[in-house]
Order: sequence, then structure tokens, then C-alpha cells
Amino acid sequence: MTDRHGSHGPDHGLERLIFFSDAVFAIAITLLIIEVHVPELEGSATDAQWIAALFHLFPSFSAFALSFIVIGAIWTSHHATLSMLSQFDRSLIWPNMLMLMAIAFLPFSTALLSRGSLSIVPYVFYSASLLIAALLKTRLTLVALRPELISSGVPQQAVVVERRLAWVMPIVSAAAVILSAFVAQWGMLALLGIPIARRLPFFRRPDF
Amino acid sequence: MTDRHGSHGPDHGLERLIFFSDAVFAIAITLLIIEVHVPELEGSATDAQWIAALFHLFPSFSAFALSFIVIGAIWTSHHATLSMLSQFDRSLIWPNMLMLMAIAFLPFSTALLSRGSLSIVPYVFYSASLLIAALLKTRLTLVALRPELISSGVPQQAVVVERRLAWVMPIVSAAAVILSAFVAQWGMLALLGIPIARRLPFFRRPDF
Amino acid sequence: MTDRHGSHGPDHGLERLIFFSDAVFAIAITLLIIEVHVPELEGSATDAQWIAALFHLFPSFSAFALSFIVIGAIWTSHHATLSMLSQFDRSLIWPNMLMLMAIAFLPFSTALLSRGSLSIVPYVFYSASLLIAALLKTRLTLVALRPELISSGVPQQAVVVERRLAWVMPIVSAAAVILSAFVAQWGMLALLGIPIARRLPFFRRPDF
Amino acid sequence: MTDRHGSHGPDHGLERLIFFSDAVFAIAITLLIIEVHVPELEGSATDAQWIAALFHLFPSFSAFALSFIVIGAIWTSHHATLSMLSQFDRSLIWPNMLMLMAIAFLPFSTALLSRGSLSIVPYVFYSASLLIAALLKTRLTLVALRPELISSGVPQQAVVVERRLAWVMPIVSAAAVILSAFVAQWGMLALLGIPIARRLPFFRRPDF
Repeated sequence: MTDRHGSHGPDHGLERLIFFSDAVFAIAITLLIIEVHVPELEGSATDAQWIAALFHLFPSFSAFALSFIVIGAIWTSHHATLSMLSQFDRSLIWPNMLMLMAIAFLPFSTALLSRGSLSIVPYVFYSASLLIAALLKTRLTLVALRPELISSGVPQQAVVVERRLAWVMPIVSAAAVILSAFVAQWGMLALLGIPIARRLPFFRRPDF
Repeated sequence: MTDRHGSHGPDHGLERLIFFSDAVFAIAITLLIIEVHVPELEGSATDAQWIAALFHLFPSFSAFALSFIVIGAIWTSHHATLSMLSQFDRSLIWPNMLMLMAIAFLPFSTALLSRGSLSIVPYVFYSASLLIAALLKTRLTLVALRPELISSGVPQQAVVVERRLAWVMPIVSAAAVILSAFVAQWGMLALLGIPIARRLPFFRRPDF
Repeated sequence: MTDRHGSHGPDHGLERLIFFSDAVFAIAITLLIIEVHVPELEGSATDAQWIAALFHLFPSFSAFALSFIVIGAIWTSHHATLSMLSQFDRSLIWPNMLMLMAIAFLPFSTALLSRGSLSIVPYVFYSASLLIAALLKTRLTLVALRPELISSGVPQQAVVVERRLAWVMPIVSAAAVILSAFVAQWGMLALLGIPIARRLPFFRRPDF
Repeated sequence: MTDRHGSHGPDHGLERLIFFSDAVFAIAITLLIIEVHVPELEGSATDAQWIAALFHLFPSFSAFALSFIVIGAIWTSHHATLSMLSQFDRSLIWPNMLMLMAIAFLPFSTALLSRGSLSIVPYVFYSASLLIAALLKTRLTLVALRPELISSGVPQQAVVVERRLAWVMPIVSAAAVILSAFVAQWGMLALLGIPIARRLPFFRRPDF
């Protein structure tokens, strides 16, 4: 059912979709910390042992921070895309649900990444799971930004930029997959492409 | 208390019920990943060992995906049913709460399913827990779709289809219970009946 | 800051308080299932071994169901109380926060209860934690139902009944504490006093 | 995109930011209990053994309560700050996201604190993680309370007090870091500075 003429106003169905998505994003992003395990030290451990144990968690802390920022970036993009719509449409539900499935999967990939392995497999797996999440977000963007759903107050230029931006993360994640097959964790540096791209005028969102 | 003449407008109580339900759905669907455990490998494990360990998680990954889609389908149906109402009514609270209890239970059934057992018990238990969740959702639909609660903008035909759809998942889940008693995990294939049924004209939701 | 004359309308601050509370309720109620652990059986375990293992979880399942219903009942009461207000007031924040702390603690008490102990301690501890949560909810009700905060559409009789209802759960929980000191898990039967009391005319909420 | 002239009214983007933040706060605050582990006792353990085991959890219970109150205080402050705005602005997203990262990290610091160590490291680490969360909240306050974003109904005096209050928690947390380097857990007493400061007229929020 579209809520086009429903009693809750034009965007009630859309609000519930956004609400449910925000809750999944928030849970996935907060669950990341569960995978960082407190060091198992005796009550009598010395300061030096505690400091060593916490330094040993460095891969876990950096995997937490990286995934928090990546999920935060996807949420930001989801927020920007869906705020352009004035209309709920049933065709949004499943592309959104599958994207959320990829987001909900990321705490697992992050836990894998935080093992600090010598093998390239966890790094390739992690960046591949980002690639899948990014592609599903791109698909949602393309399904959502249809003229009949877009709010009349949104200028055409903003829609064009939003569609362009939808390709930044898939391309950068694909680069991370390839790079990490050669240089393991250093492949993650490809993700710096996201903030860099966002600074280019080509990807600047117009104010409106 | 109905909010019929309350200061928050006609549907404030309904919004809080929907909000709470969405949060429970979102948490249950995201907690599914917690049951997928990262392989315990040494830091020095080879690529081949990592790949083997990840392949070994295949039952976990497929149980995660299956339950995500099933809970997603129940959420979608909950969204469609409650968006037809304009009125909160206290009689909705407990049927909704019991349905949420069955939803919150599904991460346990999913963890059972992901053990990849040779016994039929986990598969029968899993599909029985889906059946209970589905029946409680059906009961909620029947309680909710009463003429005095339905928004005046909703055509009678949409209500009729919604009631029909409410029976698809209980029937399909009952089939999965019976089938999995004979063929274990293959009984889950009965769940494909949900997307198939949804494509039949008999179950097509009218636009309005 | 009260939102009394704010730009978001009279109840925006109240909505955020309710929203945050609902999220805490929803997480606490859904986390209950995390404490129910999947049996550790070999892949080759027989049907009979699985069935025995699941029967062995009976105390866990019943603790899950009991706590789900109790938290659900407190949520229902929170919903009814706060829907009477039209006004946010800073004085609501900390009584609400402390009540939420007691709610967030319940998954721990529930895990204790599900150990199926022969000692009375887990049962007394569990019912004492319910008593604390119930008393903190009662305190919130008394702080919230002040004439200057209540919506003008709410009849005096509804407020009177709401205040009375606020004492049902503390009294019943106190009975459960005392009873469980003598009869361990059977003390939980005192909680049946909640649905029984709710059926008495003395506690009937008027429609309005 | 600012929603300045969007179809959802002036503050829809702001509401989604608040909503997402509330969900992260709620999850972080409720996850704290997961780190309190139920004692592993035999079914035949005596009452005295259960009571001893629960007393042994005292550091866990007090770490849970402390962090619940601290996160609750940051939420309250976030609520007060953002309720002064009428305008969403993209510049709020990342300061808010980084603050949420520090909040989501607190269940880890809390678990560290609850180990009841003889070393000062867990206490310094915990108060340092509070300091970082507090500084990121202060930065968000400074970014948010810009004249062009503040709702026209908010008096200048309220904004001045809100900015002052933003420095209480960083100063108190810095004191806790320093103190706990000397007196371990007793350094946490510095946090009592928060409720004390809030009672000074200098920090009193004006009604409006």
C-alpha cells in the first residue's frame, strides 16, 4: 500500500521505513564494541601487564573505529537520499531490507578484521562485505530517486549529485578488495578515497 | 485509554505502539549476527585454513540470511496492516506484545538452526517457532482490522486482501514443520511459498 | 528547558523522552533471549538427545517468557501514564532514567532466574529487582501526573485510576519477594496478581 | 542537504539525527548489563554460596550504575542542546557521529572497570574514555549552538548557560583521570562534581 492518500499524511509509511532502518543502523554500529573483548588478566596484574594487554587490542580498536565510520558514512548517505523523497512506495521495502542485511552483517566482518591475522583472507572478506553493502545502498538510491517519489522542493542538480555520490563507496570498496589481496590490512587505506572524493566539487551537494 | 480525543491527535498512541514494535523487530533482526561466531584460528593460520573455516560457517550464514528475510517479511506485513489504522486501541497492546515475544525468540531458533545438525529436531523446532510467530501475527491482524479502527481512506478490498495475506505465512510455516520432520533442512524450502504466494493475483494488494 | 513555548510544539521534548525510553524497553526485552544458550551438542547427536537438551532449557524459556511479560506490562503502564501528559518537564528526566536503569538490569536477574537453582537466593533476587523497578515506575507516575502537566482532555477519574494502578505492581512484587523466600520459584505465582487486579472494577481505566 | 525548504517541514532532518542518536544512546546504555556475568554456580549451591557470589559482583554492579548515570547525563545534555535548534545542518552530522562513537565505546571501558583490578590502568583508561566522550559532546554543543541554527524562541541567556554547562563534564572527567592515577577507583569520586556543579546558580538553566 502506498500511503499516497492515507490518513497519516503523505510520508507516514516513509517515516516508518526510515525509523526501522535507523534502528538497524544504530544497533549494528553499537554492537561493534561487543566484539572487543576485555583482556583476561588476574586481579593482581601489574600496570605494565594491563598496558601491554590494551596495546594488544590495537587491531580491535582500529577495526571498531573503521567500521563505525564506514557505517556512519552509509547512514549519512541513506539520510541524504531518503530526505529527498516525499512519497512512500512499496518498491523501497526490499531493496532497503537487503541493504540492512548487509549492514547487520558488518559486526561479523569487523570481528574477523580485528583478529589481526597474517592471512589476507579476513581483509579481503571484510572489504568484500563493505562492497556488497555499498552496492546494495547504490541499488536503493537508484530505486528511491525516481521522479514520481522525489519531493517537489528538491532541485534536479541535487538529485544528479546524489546519484553520482552513490557510486563512490562501491568503487572505493572494490579498490579495497583488490588492494587487500596484495597488501592485507593496508588495502583498507583505499577507504580514504571516500572523504577525499567527497571534497571534490564534482561530488558537492548543492544547498537548497 | 484510547487516544480518540487526546491532545496528541488521533494516532499518537498508535505511533508509540508501532515505534516500540519497530525497535523490537530491528533488535531481533540485528542480533541474529551475534550467533555467527568468528572462527578461532591462530594468527599464523594460512589463507587455505581461513577459507575452510569460513566455508564451515555456511550453515550459520544461511540461517542468518533466512531469518533476516523471514523477520523482514513479518515486519513488512506488520507495517502494511497497521498503516491501515487511524485509531489506537488498548486491545492491540497484548496481541502485539505476544507477537513481539515470538519475534524476539527467533534469534535463539536461528542459532539452533545454524548448528547444521544431522538430527531433525533443530529444523522442526525452528519452523515451529516461525509457525507460532506467524499465528500470533495473524491474530494481531484480525484484532487490528476492525471497522472501527480502520482509517476511512482505506478501501474495503485492501482490507480483504490483507486478511487473506495474513494466512499465507502460518500455512507455509506449518508446511515447513511437517516437511522438516521428514527431510530436515530441506523442509525450509517450503518457505519459498511466501514470495510465490505474494505474486498470485489473489494476494495482490490494491493501490489506493 | 521545558518546551512550553519552544518552536517544536508543546510536546517535542516529551516525545524524545518517550522515544528514548521505548528504545531502552525494546532493547532490554529483546536482550532477554541472549541469555538462553543453545545446547552444545555434537553434530551427530540423536533426536532424543536434542529433545532432552531442549527440555533441559525449560527454566530458561519460562524465565524469558515471564520477564518479557513483566517488562511488557511496565511498558504498557508507562505508555498509559505518559500519554496523559501534554507537557514536557525537566523533572521527569531523572525519575524516568532511574526506572530505565532498573529495566535494563532485568536481563541480568532473568539470567540468574534461568539457572533453575535449588537455592532461594536467585528467586528472591529476581523478585527484589522487579520490586525496585516497580517502585521506580510508581515514583515516575507520581512525578508525572501533576495537574500542570496533564493534558486538558484527560478526565480526573482516569488520573485517579492511573495512580491506583501504579501501586499494583509494587505490592505484587513485594508479595513475590516474601513468598519466594519460602517457596523459591513458586513465589513467582504472586505475579499473577497483576492480571487479576487489572480485571477488578476498582482498577478499570475509563474510556475517554 | 539542509531541509530548510524541504517538504517535511523545517526540522525533519534534525529529527532523524536525534532519533539515530537516541537509539545509539539507548543501545549503549542497555548493553552495559551484558558485561555483568551471572555467577557460574552448581545447581546444588547453597544460599550462602549464592550470596557470596553476588557480593563478589559488587564492582560490576557499581560500574553498571556509574556508567548508566554518566551516559544518562550525556543524553540529558544532548537532549537540552538539540532541543534549542530549529534547523538541521549537515555540519552537525560528523561531530555527532564521533561523539556517538565515544558513547558506543563506553560499554568496553565499563567492562574494564568492573574487573576490580589492583592496577590503576583500568581506572585511568575508564576516566580517559569519559573525558574523550565529554570533549566530543562539548565540540558538538559548540557546533550546534550557532545563531543561525537556534530556534527563535530560545532566550540568549539559555544559550549562554548551555555553553557553560558543556564544560562541566570535560573538567570533571579530566580531574577523574588525574585523581585515578593516584587513588585508582576513588578517582571516580571526582564525577560527583557533575551533580554538584549543576546545583550552582552559575549553571542554572533559565525557564522559558
